[in-house]
Amino acid sequence: MRRQPHNEYSGHRVVGVRLSEPITPEIAGASKEAHKPQLYAYHMFDKAHIVMLTEEKLIHLNDGKAILKELRQLEKNGVEKIRWEEGGGMYSGEQYLIRRLGYDIGGRIHLGRSAGDLEAVGRRVRQRDRLINLMKNINHLRNSALQVAEQNLDSVMPGYTHSQHAQPTTLGHQLMAWASALERDFERAVQAYSRVNQSPAGAAIMTGSSFPLNRHRTSELLGFDKVLRNTFDAILNEEVTLDTLMTVSTVHLNLAKWASDINFWFTSESGYIDIPDRFCGTSSIMTQKRNPDSLEYMRGAASVAMGGLVTAFSVQKAASGDTTLDPRYMDYALTESLNLADRHLNWMSELLPALKVNKDRMKYMAGAYWAQATDVAAALVKENNIPWRTAHQIVGILVRFSYERNIKPQDVTPELIKEAAIEYMGESVDISNQTLAKALDPIEFVKARTLYGGPSASECTNRLNDYLDHLNKDNKMIQNIELKLQESAKSLELAIDNLLNS
Amino acid sequence: MRRQPHNEYSGHRVVGVRLSEPITPEIAGASKEAHKPQLYAYHMFDKAHIVMLTEEKLIHLNDGKAILKELRQLEKNGVEKIRWEEGGGMYSGEQYLIRRLGYDIGGRIHLGRSAGDLEAVGRRVRQRDRLINLMKNINHLRNSALQVAEQNLDSVMPGYTHSQHAQPTTLGHQLMAWASALERDFERAVQAYSRVNQSPAGAAIMTGSSFPLNRHRTSELLGFDKVLRNTFDAILNEEVTLDTLMTVSTVHLNLAKWASDINFWFTSESGYIDIPDRFCGTSSIMTQKRNPDSLEYMRGAASVAMGGLVTAFSVQKAASGDTTLDPRYMDYALTESLNLADRHLNWMSELLPALKVNKDRMKYMAGAYWAQATDVAAALVKENNIPWRTAHQIVGILVRFSYERNIKPQDVTPELIKEAAIEYMGESVDISNQTLAKALDPIEFVKARTLYGGPSASECTNRLNDYLDHLNKDNKMIQNIELKLQESAKSLELAIDNLLNS
Amino acid sequence: MRRQPHNEYSGHRVVGVRLSEPITPEIAGASKEAHKPQLYAYHMFDKAHIVMLTEEKLIHLNDGKAILKELRQLEKNGVEKIRWEEGGGMYSGEQYLIRRLGYDIGGRIHLGRSAGDLEAVGRRVRQRDRLINLMKNINHLRNSALQVAEQNLDSVMPGYTHSQHAQPTTLGHQLMAWASALERDFERAVQAYSRVNQSPAGAAIMTGSSFPLNRHRTSELLGFDKVLRNTFDAILNEEVTLDTLMTVSTVHLNLAKWASDINFWFTSESGYIDIPDRFCGTSSIMTQKRNPDSLEYMRGAASVAMGGLVTAFSVQKAASGDTTLDPRYMDYALTESLNLADRHLNWMSELLPALKVNKDRMKYMAGAYWAQATDVAAALVKENNIPWRTAHQIVGILVRFSYERNIKPQDVTPELIKEAAIEYMGESVDISNQTLAKALDPIEFVKARTLYGGPSASECTNRLNDYLDHLNKDNKMIQNIELKLQESAKSLELAIDNLLNS
Amino acid sequence: MRRQPHNEYSGHRVVGVRLSEPITPEIAGASKEAHKPQLYAYHMFDKAHIVMLTEEKLIHLNDGKAILKELRQLEKNGVEKIRWEEGGGMYSGEQYLIRRLGYDIGGRIHLGRSAGDLEAVGRRVRQRDRLINLMKNINHLRNSALQVAEQNLDSVMPGYTHSQHAQPTTLGHQLMAWASALERDFERAVQAYSRVNQSPAGAAIMTGSSFPLNRHRTSELLGFDKVLRNTFDAILNEEVTLDTLMTVSTVHLNLAKWASDINFWFTSESGYIDIPDRFCGTSSIMTQKRNPDSLEYMRGAASVAMGGLVTAFSVQKAASGDTTLDPRYMDYALTESLNLADRHLNWMSELLPALKVNKDRMKYMAGAYWAQATDVAAALVKENNIPWRTAHQIVGILVRFSYERNIKPQDVTPELIKEAAIEYMGESVDISNQTLAKALDPIEFVKARTLYGGPSASECTNRLNDYLDHLNKDNKMIQNIELKLQESAKSLELAIDNLLNS
Repeated sequence: MRRQPHNEYSGHRVVGVRLSEPITPEIAGASKEAHKPQLYAYHMFDKAHIVMLTEEKLIHLNDGKAILKELRQLEKNGVEKIRWEEGGGMYSGEQYLIRRLGYDIGGRIHLGRSAGDLEAVGRRVRQRDRLINLMKNINHLRNSALQVAEQNLDSVMPGYTHSQHAQPTTLGHQLMAWASALERDFERAVQAYSRVNQSPAGAAIMTGSSFPLNRHRTSELLGFDKVLRNTFDAILNEEVTLDTLMTVSTVHLNLAKWASDINFWFTSESGYIDIPDRFCGTSSIMTQKRNPDSLEYMRGAASVAMGGLVTAFSVQKAASGDTTLDPRYMDYALTESLNLADRHLNWMSELLPALKVNKDRMKYMAGAYWAQATDVAAALVKENNIPWRTAHQIVGILVRFSYERNIKPQDVTPELIKEAAIEYMGESVDISNQTLAKALDPIEFVKARTLYGGPSASECTNRLNDYLDHLNKDNKMIQNIELKLQESAKSLELAIDNLLNS
Repeated sequence: MRRQPHNEYSGHRVVGVRLSEPITPEIAGASKEAHKPQLYAYHMFDKAHIVMLTEEKLIHLNDGKAILKELRQLEKNGVEKIRWEEGGGMYSGEQYLIRRLGYDIGGRIHLGRSAGDLEAVGRRVRQRDRLINLMKNINHLRNSALQVAEQNLDSVMPGYTHSQHAQPTTLGHQLMAWASALERDFERAVQAYSRVNQSPAGAAIMTGSSFPLNRHRTSELLGFDKVLRNTFDAILNEEVTLDTLMTVSTVHLNLAKWASDINFWFTSESGYIDIPDRFCGTSSIMTQKRNPDSLEYMRGAASVAMGGLVTAFSVQKAASGDTTLDPRYMDYALTESLNLADRHLNWMSELLPALKVNKDRMKYMAGAYWAQATDVAAALVKENNIPWRTAHQIVGILVRFSYERNIKPQDVTPELIKEAAIEYMGESVDISNQTLAKALDPIEFVKARTLYGGPSASECTNRLNDYLDHLNKDNKMIQNIELKLQESAKSLELAIDNLLNS
Repeated sequence: MRRQPHNEYSGHRVVGVRLSEPITPEIAGASKEAHKPQLYAYHMFDKAHIVMLTEEKLIHLNDGKAILKELRQLEKNGVEKIRWEEGGGMYSGEQYLIRRLGYDIGGRIHLGRSAGDLEAVGRRVRQRDRLINLMKNINHLRNSALQVAEQNLDSVMPGYTHSQHAQPTTLGHQLMAWASALERDFERAVQAYSRVNQSPAGAAIMTGSSFPLNRHRTSELLGFDKVLRNTFDAILNEEVTLDTLMTVSTVHLNLAKWASDINFWFTSESGYIDIPDRFCGTSSIMTQKRNPDSLEYMRGAASVAMGGLVTAFSVQKAASGDTTLDPRYMDYALTESLNLADRHLNWMSELLPALKVNKDRMKYMAGAYWAQATDVAAALVKENNIPWRTAHQIVGILVRFSYERNIKPQDVTPELIKEAAIEYMGESVDISNQTLAKALDPIEFVKARTLYGGPSASECTNRLNDYLDHLNKDNKMIQNIELKLQESAKSLELAIDNLLNS
Repeated sequence: MRRQPHNEYSGHRVVGVRLSEPITPEIAGASKEAHKPQLYAYHMFDKAHIVMLTEEKLIHLNDGKAILKELRQLEKNGVEKIRWEEGGGMYSGEQYLIRRLGYDIGGRIHLGRSAGDLEAVGRRVRQRDRLINLMKNINHLRNSALQVAEQNLDSVMPGYTHSQHAQPTTLGHQLMAWASALERDFERAVQAYSRVNQSPAGAAIMTGSSFPLNRHRTSELLGFDKVLRNTFDAILNEEVTLDTLMTVSTVHLNLAKWASDINFWFTSESGYIDIPDRFCGTSSIMTQKRNPDSLEYMRGAASVAMGGLVTAFSVQKAASGDTTLDPRYMDYALTESLNLADRHLNWMSELLPALKVNKDRMKYMAGAYWAQATDVAAALVKENNIPWRTAHQIVGILVRFSYERNIKPQDVTPELIKEAAIEYMGESVDISNQTLAKALDPIEFVKARTLYGGPSASECTNRLNDYLDHLNKDNKMIQNIELKLQESAKSLELAIDNLLNS
C-alpha cells in the first residue's frame, strides 16, 4: 500500500499513517474560525521561516527559492482569501505549496516548526496589530474629547455623587477626566503590546528543534521586539492574551461609564444635552421616542468584554501547564471584544462633537439644588475663622431650613445663616450679602477652583496643553511602532529578493 | 411634502417623520444577528396576533384574511429564508406585508403590539424550543451512559480523591453517577422551560394596549402554558434567560468534569481506556501523537458557558428596571452556549460506547496503590471489635511500613499488621490469612458494598432499573411537552383556516 | 513506641502513623472558616449516625448510649460555641467524644463515615436552612411590595424605556411587576431546595461502606426528602451548590434593578419620591447631601453575587470528577451572597412602605414629555379606521411639530394633527376636541388599559388578589417544609430517647 | 437648641443638622470592614494634609502644631489599633482629634478635603504597599524556581501536550519557563504600581477646593510619584484597582497551572516526584492517603481571584461616572486575592526545593511512549534529505507498527523503519543502527536542543545567567521603590518636626 497522496495534499492526518480512521468532521472543523483572523500572520511566518531555513542552509537554496516564489504568487490574489479557500488553517501554507510544488519541495516548509509556534506567532501578530489599532482609536477619542472639552470650559453644570447634586463643575472639566482615563488605557495597550510582541518562533511545540534554527533572525524578520527566552514558556504560557483582553475590557468599562453619563444628560429630566437623530432609534409603538441606541450598545459591550475575560481566564486555568485546545475558545472573545471597542471608540469620537449642549439648563441646575453649599461653608470659614466642621454643620442646618421653608438657594439671606449658626452653636456668624451672593453662585464656585487639576477655565486651559502634549507624544509612539513593523516587513521582502536573486 | 412611502415599506423610522436624519447604518445593523435565531417565532406571533385581532374584531375580517393568506404564502419559500432576505428583523412580517398588501392592509398588523412583546415572544419561543432540544440530548447521553454502565458493572478500577487512589469502584458505578447528574440537569431544563414558556404577548411595551386584546387567546395559539400576570413584568424582566443559561452552564460543567476524567483515563500513565481515532487529532511534528481533541473541546466549552452567563447577568444588572438594548448582547451567549451543549452531549453519547476499556489494567491498578486499605481497617474492626479510629491508625502504620519496606499490598502478612498494631498501641490484633486476603482484594471490596447506592454489581443492577424508569418518565415528559406544542400549532392553523373560510 | 495518644485526641493525622511530620499549620488552618457555618449540621449528623449504627447493631448499645449522652451534654453549652472551641471542624464531634470517653468508645463514631459525607451533609443542611430563610425574606418583600402597590394604584407616573418617557403607568403596577419577579425567585428557591435536601449520608467518600449502613434511616432522621441514589454521585457532584448560588444571584439582580429605579426616582431631576433620612448618609464636605447609601449597597451586592457564582463555578470546573479541596473556596461566596440577600430583602421590605411618594410630580411628568403619544395614535385608528402604522407616523410628525414649535402636549389641537396627517399622506384625519383631550390625558391612558395584566386600577385590583393568593400558598409551603424538618428533628430526639431508655 | 456636641464627636452626620433621624445602624456599619486595611493610610494622609495646610497658612500654625502633636501621640499605641477602636473609619483621625482637642482645633482637619480623596488615597496607598509585597513574593519564587531548575538541568522527563507524551525535556527547563512567567508577573505588578501610585490628594470630591491647596506638596509627603492631573478623574475613576486585581489574578493563574502540573507528577501513575508530608493531609477513612492539600488550595485560589475580578469590574460598570458606594464591595476581593497570592507564592517557594525528584522514573518515561519520535523523523531528514513531511509520515507508520506489534521504542530496528517507508511511499530509506539508537534516546533528544531557549543543559546554563541578571535588576527596582517611600516618609516626619519646632 502507498500512503503518500502524490501532489494532492490532505494534511498530515492521513488515514492509515498514524491513525486508522478519519476524524469526525465536526471535531475537525471546530476551530476553523479561530484561525481565520490570523491567516495573514501564518503567511508572514511561512515566509520568514523559509528565509531563515534557506539562509541557515537547513534547506537547499533551490527549494527555498521555489517556495518563496510560490508564496509571492499566492499574495497576488489576496492572502486571506486564498488561504481561506485553500483550507488547512495554520497549515494552509503547507497545503498550498504541496498542491503546487509537490511533497518533495512543499513538504519541506514545516522543518523545525510545529502547530505550537505557528499558532503562537499567529495569535501574537494578530494581537499586536489589533493593539495598534486600538491605540489609534483610543487617541482618536482623546482628541475628540479634548476638542469638545475646550469648547465647554464655561459649560457650568452640576457634578454628581450618589446620583445627587454634589458640586458645580464644567462639562469641559469632566471631558478632561475622560481624557485622563484614556491616557491610562493607552498606556495599558502599550504595555500589553510590549509583552505580546515577543517571538515564540522556533520554539516548535516546547523544546525547539534539533535543527540549528536561528530564532533571532526569524524574530527580526517578523518584527518582534524580543525573542522569548525559553521555548517551553514561548508556547505553553498564553497569559499575554489576558493582557490584551484586560486592556480592552478597561476601555469598554470606561466607555460604559461615559455612555451612562451621557444617557442621563439626555433624559427629559435633566435636559442637559441633545443627541443627533442619527445616533437614535425610535419606537414602533411610541411615536414620540428618540432612543439613544448608540449609548446602550456602548454600555452593554462592557458586559461582553467581562464575559470574554472570564472565558479566557477560565480556559487557561483548566489547561494546567499543558498545551490544549481549550484556549481556542479565547479567540472569539478576543475578536469580539476588540471589534466592539474599535467600533465604540469611533462612535464616541463622532458623538461627542455632535452633542448639542444646553448650557443654560446646565447652569440653572448647577445652582438649583444646593450643589454650591460647600462654598457657603468655605465662606463662613474664611469670614469667621471657624473650623471647617463647624461651618459645615451650620450650612447643613441652613440647607435643611431652605428645604423646610421652601426657600431657594439664591433667596437665602445672611439672617437665615445666622439663625442656623445660633441653632447649631448658640452664637451667630458674620457673612455679608456680597460674600453670600458670591458663595451661592455656581459660576464663582468653579472660577475659584484654580488649584492644580481644578475646574476653573484658567486651570483647565493650562492642563489642556499637558493633555495635548501627552497625546502628541503617544501618537508619535504609535508612529514609531508602525515604522518599526514596516521596516521589518521591508527587511523580510528584501531577504526574499536577495535569496531569489542569488 | 408626502412622507408615506407608498407600497414601499422602509420601516417605521422614516426620515422626516419623527426623526430628521437616517440612523447611522452601523447602529441600525448592530443587532441584526440577534434576531436571526428567532425569526420563525416572530412569524408564529404574527399569525397568532392577526387571528386574535380578527376574532376580536379589532381589525376587519377581510384585512385579517388578506394578511393571513399572505403569511401562508410566505411560508412556502421557507420562513427563515424569506424573512432574513426581507430584512427588518422582528418587523420582517410587517415589512413583507406592506410591500405586498400596501400600508392600508399591511399597516394594520402592529395594532396593540410593540417591539417589547415581539422580542420577548421571540426570545421565549426560541428558548423553549432550544430547551426541548437540550432535554432530548441530555436524555440521549443518559441512555448512552446507562448502557455503557451496564456493560461495566464488573470493571473494577481505582476511584480517586485529590488525584490519589482512594477506593476501588467500578466504571459502571461511576457512569451511573454521571446519569444522576444528568437527571438533575434534565430537571433544571424542565424548570427553566416552565418559567420560559409563559406568554408576554399583548403586553406591548409595558402597559399592554387600550385596544381590548385577548391575551389568553394569543397565548393559547402560541403554545404558552400561562399568561404573564403583569404587562410591565412581561416585558421588562428578562431574568428567565438566566434560568436557561444557568441550566446549560451546569450541563457544560458536568461535561467538562467527565471529559477531564476520560482524559486522565486515556493518559499513557493510567492506560485505562482507549479512544477511537475518529475522536483524536495528531500532530504536525510529533508523529506519535493521538490527541483527544474532542475531550478538550468539551472541557473548554464550560468556560464559554460561564463567560456567557457573566455577560448575560451583567447586561441585565446595568439595565435597571428599564427596557434597553444592552440585553441584545445576551443572544450570542445563548446561541453559542446551547449549540455547544447540544454538540457535546452528542459527542459524549457517541464516545462512551466507543471507549475501549482495559479491564485488566483497571483491575491491576485498583489494588496496586492501597486503595483497598479502608477494608483492611474494616476487617480489624470486625475481627477484633476495636474502634474504627484505632483500626484506621493501625492500617496507617501498615501502609507506611509497606512503602518503607517496599512490600506490595498483596504481599502483606498478618504479622506485619500485628507489628503495626503493637507499634500503635502496644498490643497486637487478630487477623487470619483468609480474612486478610479478602480484605486486600479490590474485587471483594466492591462486592461487599451492597448498601443502597453502592458499587456492588448486585446493587447497581437494582439501581439501574430506577435510572431507566426515571429516564422513561422523563422521555414521556418531553413527548407531552411536544404534543402540547403540536396541538397549539394545529389550533393556530385551524383558527386561520376557519377565518380564511369564513 | 506507642502512637495512640490516650485520651488526648489529636485528630487522625498523627505524626508517625501514616505521615512522618506535622502539616504546615497554615495549610491545616486554611479551611477552618469554611466549616464554621455548618458545625451545627455536623452535630446533627453525628447524632443521627450513631442512632443508626446502634439501631443496626453496628456498634454496641452501650457505646451508642454513652456517645449520645455525651452529645446531649455538649448541647447544653451551645453546639456551635463548644464545637468551635473544641476545634477539628467536621471532626469536632469525634474530637469531643474521644477527649471525654476515650478512644475505646469515642473512636467508634466514624465507622462507615468519611469526610466526604460529613462535608456534603454539612453543606446541604446549611444550604437548605439558608434557603428556607431566603424564602421567608422573599415573601416578606412580596408582602411589602403588594401593600405599597395597593396604596399606589392611582399613582400615575411615566414608565420608561431606554431612559426616555415611554407610556404612563402607575407605581402600583410597577410594584406588582416586582412581586412577579419575586414569585419566580421563590420558585427558584424551592426548586434549589428540593435538589439540595437529598441525603448523601452513608456514601462515605464515594463507595459507601462494607458495613451494612441503613442510609434511609439516617436520611429520615436528618430530615432529607430523598436518599441520593449513587454513592459516588452523592459525594463528588457539588453542582447543587450552584443552584443555591444562582437563585440568590437572581434575587440580587432583581434587587439591584429596583434599587436603580428608586435611585432615579430619588434624583432632584425626577423628584418622584423621597427616602427617609434613616436610609441616607450625608457628606463630610457637601453639607446639602442626602445620599441613598442603602440603595447603593443593594445594587452593588449583585456584583458580589456574580463574582461568587464565578468562583463557585470555576472551582468545580477545575475539580474534574474528583473530590478536591478547591470547592472549599465556595463557602465564603455562599455565606456572603446569602447574608447580603437576607439583609437587602429586609432593607427593601422596610424601605418601600417608608417611601414618600410625590403623586403630583409623577402625574405632571406622566403627560409632560409625550408619554401619552401611543393613545393619540390609537384614537386616530379608532376614529378614522386608518392602519396603525399610518396613525403612528402621523403622530410622529405631530410630536416633532410640538417640539419644533414649542407646543406642550396639552396644548395640541386637532388642527395640528390634521396638518401632520396632510404632511404625512396628503390627506387629513378626523379627531374631535373631546377625543383628543382624552387621548392626551395620562390618567385616561392608564384607565383604558383594562386588559389582563394591565395598569388600570380595576385590573390591578383583580390581579392583586391573585398575587395575594399566590403569596399565601407559598407561605404555606414554607410552613410545610419547616414542619417536616421539625418532625424529623423530633424523631431524631425520640430515637435517642428510646436508645437511652433501652 | 444647640446641635454642637461639645467635645464629644459624633461624626458629621449629627441628627438635627442636615438629617432628622439617625441612619439605620446596619447601613452605617456596612463598609466598616472595607476601611480597616487602609486605616494606616488615612493616618499618613491626615499628617501630610495638616503639614500642607499649615505650611500654606490655610490653618494657623498653633492649630497645626496641636494637631500634629496629637497625631504623633496616637502613634505610640499603634495606629491601626487606636483608629479601629476610635471608630469612624476614614474619619477616625478627625474623630480622635475632636475628642481630644475639641471642635475648635480638631474640627479644622477636614478643610479642603472630602471622603473622596480620603478613600482614594487610602485605597491607593494600601494597593501600592500590597503590590510591593507581591513583587517581593514573586521574586522569592523566581529565586526558588531558578535554584531548583539549576539542580534539575539533567532531569530528563516527558513534556506533555494534550495530556499525552510530546517530547523529552527537563524539569529544569520547565522551571525556567515558570520563571519567565514570573518575570512577566513582576512587570505587571510594576506597571500596576506606577498607575496606582499617583496622588488624588487635594481633589476632594471632584473639584478640589476653593482653598489654594498645594497638591504637589501633599503628594510628595505621601510618596506618590505623580499628581493626578484632573480632580474629577482623581476621584471618580477607580479602574486602577482593576490593574492590581488583574495582576494578582495572573499570578494566581500561573500558580494554578503549576500546582496542576505538580499534582500530576505526584500521582501514583506518573510517580515523578514526592511531596513532603508537611504539605499533605491524609484521610479519616482511607488510611493510605497522602493528599496534596497545598496544591489544591493554590489551584482553587485562581477561581477566587477571577470571581473577585468580576465583582470589581461589575461594581464599576454599575457606577457610571459617578462616585457611589458600590465599589466598596471591591475591597474584600482586593484583600482576599492579595492575601492568597502572598500565601501561595510562599508555599510554592518552599515546596519546590522540598520536592523529591525521581529522576530514574522520569528518564524511563521520557522514552517509553514515543516522546522521542520527532527526532527519528529528523534523523530521516538528515540522512536521506527527504522532506520533513515525508519523514514525519513514515515515522507515523513506524509508531503505529510499534503499537500494533507491541515493539517498544528502544527495540525498533532500521528494518522496521524501512518497512514503514515502503508502506508510505513505495521506497525505502537509509538509517544506521547507530543513528537510530541516538535518535531513540531521550537524553540525546534534549542534548541536541542547543538552540536559543532550548532545553539542553548547555543552553539552559547560559540562559540561567540571564534569568538571574533579570532577577537582580528587578530586586534592585524594589529596593529603589522602597527607598523612595522611606525618603518621603522621612520628609513627612521632618516637615512635622520643623513645624513643631517653629
